[in-house]
Amino acid sequence: MRWMRERGLAGELVAEFAGTMILILFGCGVVAQVIGAGLGGHDSIAWAWGFGVMFGVYVAGRISGGHLNPAVSVALAMFSGFEWRKVLPYSLAQTAGAFVGALLVRWNYDTILQAVDPRHTTKTQIVFSTLPGNGTLPVDPVGAFRDQVIGTAILLFLILAVTDTFNLAPKANLMPFVVGLIVVAIGMAWGAAAGYAINPARDFGPRLASFLTGYGGAFVDQTGYPYFWVPIVAPILGGIMGAALYRVAIGRFLPAPQREPGRVEVEP
Amino acid sequence: MRWMRERGLAGELVAEFAGTMILILFGCGVVAQVIGAGLGGHDSIAWAWGFGVMFGVYVAGRISGGHLNPAVSVALAMFSGFEWRKVLPYSLAQTAGAFVGALLVRWNYDTILQAVDPRHTTKTQIVFSTLPGNGTLPVDPVGAFRDQVIGTAILLFLILAVTDTFNLAPKANLMPFVVGLIVVAIGMAWGAAAGYAINPARDFGPRLASFLTGYGGAFVDQTGYPYFWVPIVAPILGGIMGAALYRVAIGRFLPAPQREPGRVEVEP
Amino acid sequence: MRWMRERGLAGELVAEFAGTMILILFGCGVVAQVIGAGLGGHDSIAWAWGFGVMFGVYVAGRISGGHLNPAVSVALAMFSGFEWRKVLPYSLAQTAGAFVGALLVRWNYDTILQAVDPRHTTKTQIVFSTLPGNGTLPVDPVGAFRDQVIGTAILLFLILAVTDTFNLAPKANLMPFVVGLIVVAIGMAWGAAAGYAINPARDFGPRLASFLTGYGGAFVDQTGYPYFWVPIVAPILGGIMGAALYRVAIGRFLPAPQREPGRVEVEP
Amino acid sequence: MRWMRERGLAGELVAEFAGTMILILFGCGVVAQVIGAGLGGHDSIAWAWGFGVMFGVYVAGRISGGHLNPAVSVALAMFSGFEWRKVLPYSLAQTAGAFVGALLVRWNYDTILQAVDPRHTTKTQIVFSTLPGNGTLPVDPVGAFRDQVIGTAILLFLILAVTDTFNLAPKANLMPFVVGLIVVAIGMAWGAAAGYAINPARDFGPRLASFLTGYGGAFVDQTGYPYFWVPIVAPILGGIMGAALYRVAIGRFLPAPQREPGRVEVEP
Repeated sequence: MRWMRERGLAGELVAEFAGTMILILFGCGVVAQVIGAGLGGHDSIAWAWGFGVMFGVYVAGRISGGHLNPAVSVALAMFSGFEWRKVLPYSLAQTAGAFVGALLVRWNYDTILQAVDPRHTTKTQIVFSTLPGNGTLPVDPVGAFRDQVIGTAILLFLILAVTDTFNLAPKANLMPFVVGLIVVAIGMAWGAAAGYAINPARDFGPRLASFLTGYGGAFVDQTGYPYFWVPIVAPILGGIMGAALYRVAIGRFLPAPQREPGRVEVEP
Repeated sequence: MRWMRERGLAGELVAEFAGTMILILFGCGVVAQVIGAGLGGHDSIAWAWGFGVMFGVYVAGRISGGHLNPAVSVALAMFSGFEWRKVLPYSLAQTAGAFVGALLVRWNYDTILQAVDPRHTTKTQIVFSTLPGNGTLPVDPVGAFRDQVIGTAILLFLILAVTDTFNLAPKANLMPFVVGLIVVAIGMAWGAAAGYAINPARDFGPRLASFLTGYGGAFVDQTGYPYFWVPIVAPILGGIMGAALYRVAIGRFLPAPQREPGRVEVEP
Repeated sequence: MRWMRERGLAGELVAEFAGTMILILFGCGVVAQVIGAGLGGHDSIAWAWGFGVMFGVYVAGRISGGHLNPAVSVALAMFSGFEWRKVLPYSLAQTAGAFVGALLVRWNYDTILQAVDPRHTTKTQIVFSTLPGNGTLPVDPVGAFRDQVIGTAILLFLILAVTDTFNLAPKANLMPFVVGLIVVAIGMAWGAAAGYAINPARDFGPRLASFLTGYGGAFVDQTGYPYFWVPIVAPILGGIMGAALYRVAIGRFLPAPQREPGRVEVEP
Repeated sequence: MRWMRERGLAGELVAEFAGTMILILFGCGVVAQVIGAGLGGHDSIAWAWGFGVMFGVYVAGRISGGHLNPAVSVALAMFSGFEWRKVLPYSLAQTAGAFVGALLVRWNYDTILQAVDPRHTTKTQIVFSTLPGNGTLPVDPVGAFRDQVIGTAILLFLILAVTDTFNLAPKANLMPFVVGLIVVAIGMAWGAAAGYAINPARDFGPRLASFLTGYGGAFVDQTGYPYFWVPIVAPILGGIMGAALYRVAIGRFLPAPQREPGRVEVEP
């Protein structure tokens, strides 16, 4: 597929930008709708974040791989041959897409958020970025760090599983659907202790967008601690761990995805 | 496929009529059930509107393309070679189907709606057509217009993505399923500021049906403003923008869908 | 596929029995759980009835076609060449399977239902069979009859659509999944006025099971009217109408499913 | 596929361990989130347990078959040719994976659970293991035993159905998706009387993990009865019954899955 290689990095970065923007339009959008308008609840939050990932991957998957997440880019560079030189550009494009998506949500839901939280507190800060225990539960930054490591490890472990054509990777172009369901499930089961950022771009881009539009406390948590670095560092660390575990525990028992002459891929 | 061309416009219009009627039977139906009977909530509203689109496309997709939405027909005429001369007939058929579907919902749920809103106010008006902030939230027509532009831009951007066979379009005839999920997600994340009409036929047909059956204020919003034109104009504008963005940002990095001799379609 | 023909009617009746029993194990089961135990709500009721249909069709589809519903059998006999002589045996097998499934639910949830409704009123009668307005909303038997006609017309219209291989019938053996979603959607949007029996076997079998196990009023509604015949007659009538409409409005614009020599089926 | 046979039992046990750990990370995770943090409700519990099974099977399916459940291993040994000598090792690996997954949930949600149930009562015991009537409903151990027999019979009956390539087994590697939906449905309709363990490893592993981390009453129910053996014995018994029923009622009407020379598998 020569046309793909010819497009070069520019197209990939645009795709990552657009895909991550779609992710945030649904993700921050649903939290704005639930917290601001009371339409939906935690279940719709879990579903819509998953749909955001699903459609972001449908948008970007063919061109860039649809990482939409620096933790994914880093882990795939370490364990699946993604080029290291692309990791930083991808991460910046993802963060920029998340930033722009969050600005659109901020703009569209402004009057609604204003009505429920005129002073821009943590109550609506979590529309945009995550907090330990979602701002109310008894979780400190250490606990949130641990949660983000485990949550992102689960994410990468499963992304590697469902995209491994030597395992049971869905066919018929339904991989983005199943990847989206992973995020739905994480939101339902691993969303309480730290708001399941599991993605540095998803957290930092909207955090910055909210900071620049009236949320002066965007970089600190409910205790004043500068929490913003936790959902950046912990997901990258956890993603590496999850991907490594998949390779060690599962991938080694499946044939290596090498392309030797005459090698026939496992039949769909 | 000669049989398809031979059917001509008549079959396509019947298919658009039937598909949009199905959409409304589920869409207005679920809101009637939730508001009138209290069975379900905003989550079931989001799911059932998406299912309405899904099954409408399953009904009409093979014959007419399953647009079910003038904003889709206009955008596809501009960016995907859909014939301009069919745009107006399609739009009328879609609106007529939505009108008839809404009459059936109105008829079936009459006693239930009567019990909760005997004076036919905006409380049950939103069973049929949309209002700024769903009639209660602090959103004015300008904000609703913006919301509908963005929401429909997302819709068309994603419709083009998931039906682009050079991207990751679902196979096994599961495109209608995934298109339906787009609408589920929009309902969860972009449904608060203007009720996510994102479709002039879906909004105007039922609005007219309710006006003719006792809802005297169907064409104005909660402040008396003649709001009805907003969910007609804004979705068309937003749809054009979303489709244009897909072509510019994503489509250009994928091979053009031309059928040159010997050209082999990207393998599924 | 000679083995299929050789099995004869016996296997088909066992399959219909088992598939409808599965349907009821989930369907009556979820209502027992929601009403008896408060675990879940109307959304899980809609989903689980749909899952019941989905898995019932996965069980029976290959052997008997997976009708699970006399309204389906009658409509397919009229419009899709299903043999008339099998309609009555199928219907009896379906009703018997629903009866046994309901007995299992009745047995398993006995203590839980006893605690919330010791006198076996309509409050828990709707675990097993339907009532106008679910026993509480202002719907009379005439309104319930109309609702069941429309609801079952939608069901058959859509079943014919999603199983029509000349339309967009899902492949990869996902038809049962999509058929199940039809029932999820009907439960969300057409479940308030008469409890969406849309299936004489689903309603009468469990009604009889409850009558024989302590529900003396199983055959009458909340006003004492002998309502039981409505969810038998109306679905059959509605199913015929829906299937006829599909043939007239949609099917005629698609190539007839005839098997002429050399005829190649529409490619997946 | 020689590489598969060559891997031997070690890889299969690691896969069962990892898959069951994934199951529990979502399953116990979602209950911890709902009960500890109030984010989500019974619907998200049903969905996330199903997603846990889905992703556990995506992880383990190719290597070990993705049983994740001793009741599945026993039933497949009895009715589908799974080797008896592997049943005990599989069961131990599954239980060990569930144990480790539960420890991670216990660790991550410790402060949150501590806040709502500082004395480690049955209120949060059900995060980890099941109780008759979920600890509050009027169900005794006999009723719970019956419920677990029926629930696991449904599970195995349906697993055999949706994996039977002579029936309508989903293709495109979507079997794990559909198997997950079985568990979603069981959670919605058969989750009230005994918490739907339907899996000895899922119940005993986390029960032991909670016992070792502060839940002194983990092995008894709310009345002090040593209930722990019920969700071990009843699922195995029910699984055998369900699988036997499928073979007798359905499988016999489908061609036997024998691999005779020249035998062509039923076309997808």
